[in-house]
Formats: sequence, structure tokens, C-alpha cells
Amino acid sequence: MINFEALYKLTYGIYLISSGNKSRGNGFISNTFFQVTSEPPRFASCCNKDNYTAEVIQKSGAYAVSVIPQDIPADIISRFGYKSGRDFDKLEGMELAYGETGVPIVLNEAIAYLECRVIQTIDVGTHLMFIGELVQAELLDNTREPLTYLYYRQVRKAFAPKNAPTYIDKSKLESTEPKIKAARYQCTACGYIYDDAVEEIKFADLPDDWTCPNCGTAKEDFIEI
Amino acid sequence: MINFEALYKLTYGIYLISSGNKSRGNGFISNTFFQVTSEPPRFASCCNKDNYTAEVIQKSGAYAVSVIPQDIPADIISRFGYKSGRDFDKLEGMELAYGETGVPIVLNEAIAYLECRVIQTIDVGTHLMFIGELVQAELLDNTREPLTYLYYRQVRKAFAPKNAPTYIDKSKLESTEPKIKAARYQCTACGYIYDDAVEEIKFADLPDDWTCPNCGTAKEDFIEI
Repeated sequence: MINFEALYKLTYGIYLISSGNKSRGNGFISNTFFQVTSEPPRFASCCNKDNYTAEVIQKSGAYAVSVIPQDIPADIISRFGYKSGRDFDKLEGMELAYGETGVPIVLNEAIAYLECRVIQTIDVGTHLMFIGELVQAELLDNTREPLTYLYYRQVRKAFAPKNAPTYIDKSKLESTEPKIKAARYQCTACGYIYDDAVEEIKFADLPDDWTCPNCGTAKEDFIEI
Repeated sequence: MINFEALYKLTYGIYLISSGNKSRGNGFISNTFFQVTSEPPRFASCCNKDNYTAEVIQKSGAYAVSVIPQDIPADIISRFGYKSGRDFDKLEGMELAYGETGVPIVLNEAIAYLECRVIQTIDVGTHLMFIGELVQAELLDNTREPLTYLYYRQVRKAFAPKNAPTYIDKSKLESTEPKIKAARYQCTACGYIYDDAVEEIKFADLPDDWTCPNCGTAKEDFIEI
């Protein structure tokens, strides 16, 4: 028996992982980045094979990880987490540094960053796991709290997208939440739920240019659930 | 340049990982367990090659993960996190269930558990990474918060031991903390610091049977730092 609610008790950070070079790069939002050895410091990062960043990391042989804060603006989450870099250059206009390996590091809002050189690529099914050796690490801001997946779900009320290792199909959850009669609307990009029962303004009365407070998706891309 | 302080901005949960069978099992405390794919649900767990549990997982081909709460008693952390199962049976006297693969699952204090069958073992250097497919998952307690590495460091004031993937040699930190003149004593097992400057009772005046509030180690095993 698998009770998928149990999986929500696992703890993850949320990071912006980037790769590429000065002429073309890409990045995505990941909650699967973690240290695997201390001597030497090695890390692992999982990326869906369908993600453009997986291609870019394979080509570059390196990646950078920006640790992002709890209060990161919605447009950065939207740009990197819910859109594909095949369609546009996600790094254009961002504040970038270039690492020792040449990969772009996204500095906007970052409280720390790490740069890893890929030493092993492991096929774990739908995802590739990139084992990387630490090349550099820097702390930029010791005051803001790093964004965690728990905070993302509980406070920002959003969920992992389909390509994430931790995606959970909601139909698999044996929800213990009471059923609320008021209408609820869900962002089709990030899963954010707008609940008429708890909000001051009904969804229908929100202005047309209102966007998802979590990921910046347009009001018209919400569906009633 | 590697600033090891940056590594403290990464987020981890802390888990009790067990393996073996009814006649002999073992377990350890780990902060490197995470989901790597969602379809099917697969997970990865890193274990130091020197840890007895690494041997046991390789023999059993499966492992269980108990999600432990913030307020887990010090004696369980001490038993599983800072002692070797080669010297005694860590599971003796614990409240156990046995999974579909036959591995012991530690239920004491657990707020959820998962059971994984190993499908791939990857050598990442000092550690082995066990990729496991989810066999079962159960939620036991939806009220207590899971223990995180941040909470372990900031509230319980302890550190990862030498065998952990996230161990950081303190001499590598460019500490920005002010130097305190009062005597400080450190637990040689878990790194917990008793600081005379902030405690009501001086370390020397604590009773001889006083033990580390984090891991239960005897007073005599503290050293002045």
C-alpha cells in the first residue's frame, strides 16, 4: 500500500539550477539537489530527460545552483519553473555571473550559489542524475531564509509540476481535507489554488490582468476544480 | 573559491534508515534521502561505505525510511546516529514492523515511513547511493513536524558526524561569529556545544550523570574547545 500523503513529509530545498555558456544557457527550478559525499564535496542533481536543461547540462558538463529565498518574486519562479527554455532564452535580462567552468550563475535574489563539474551521469528512469564535484561556492546573503518545498506548498500554496521527481498526481491522494463548497480555481502551470471560501474577492471579480501570485500565470489559465 | 558556509543554505530532512531482516538488522540517521523520479516513484539514499548499514542494505536489497519528528528523544538519535551497529544490535527493544521486502521498519516516534527495493547501487566515492523503487508508504502522524537538518543545527545545536555526506570540517568555515571568552564544551559524538556564556549553570557544575541533550553522550565525553 502506498499512501502518497507520506511523501509530503520528506524535506527538500528549492533551487534555481542553470547551465550552458555565454552564448546560450538555460535554467530550471529544482527540488532535487543535495550533497552525496563530503571528501571531496560532491552533489547530485536530478533533471527530467524532457527538460531542455538536461540537454544543456550534458553538453556543458557542469551546472550552477542558486539558493533562492522564501520571498523570491513570482515572475522568477514562473520564468524558470513553468516554462521551457526551448521557446525563449530564460537567461536574457537576468543578472548573471560566469563560473570557472563557464556556466552562467543566476544572481537575482540568490542567497548563495554553488558550481559543480559533472563527473558522472546516471539514468534513473524518467530523470538523469548529474553527480557533480564542487568547483566553487559562495554565500551572498546570510539574512534571508532559503525556500523549501514545505514553504512552497504550505505558504505559497503551489505544487511540483509534472516533470519534477516529486510530482504527485492529486487523484492518488486520500485527502483528509474537508470538502469546501465554495468554488476553487487552480493555476494550470503551478497548481496554486485560489479558494473563494477564504479569499476576500471572488475569483470571478478579480481583474482580467490578475496573475497567479505564485508563478505569474494569467488569470485565464486557471481552471475551476 | 569554496565558501563552505554556503553549503549550510541547502535544505535536508533527517531520517532513520533501516535494513536487514528479522534475525539481524541495523539502522542509521541520514540526511540524504530524496525522490528522484515520480513515475514510478524512485528514491535515492546515500550511505558511507564504512557504515555497517551499507553492508546490510547490499545484502538485503531493500531499506526502510522512518520520517522522524523535530522532538525525537536524544537517545534515539544517539543510538542510531552516533554508534555503530557492528558493536551491538541497534534494533533490539525498538518497536518494529517488517515490510513487504522483509526489512525492519522503526516505528518509535515515526510520523511516516517508506519502504524501497534497491534497483541500482551507485558508487559516488566515499558513499554508496542506493536507488530504490517505492514498495509501500504510510503516514502515521499528521500533527508533528518532520526533523530537518536546519532545525537540528539551529535548535538542537548539533552537526552531521564525519561519515555524513554533508559533514563540514569546522576549520574550513570562515566563521563570522564573534569570539566568546567564556568556556565552551563540545560533545565528541554529535558536536553539540555547551556554552558557559549562555547557559545558567557552568559546565563544570553540571552533575556527573548529565548527558548531551542532543544525543545522550556522557558528560565526560565532552571536550573544552
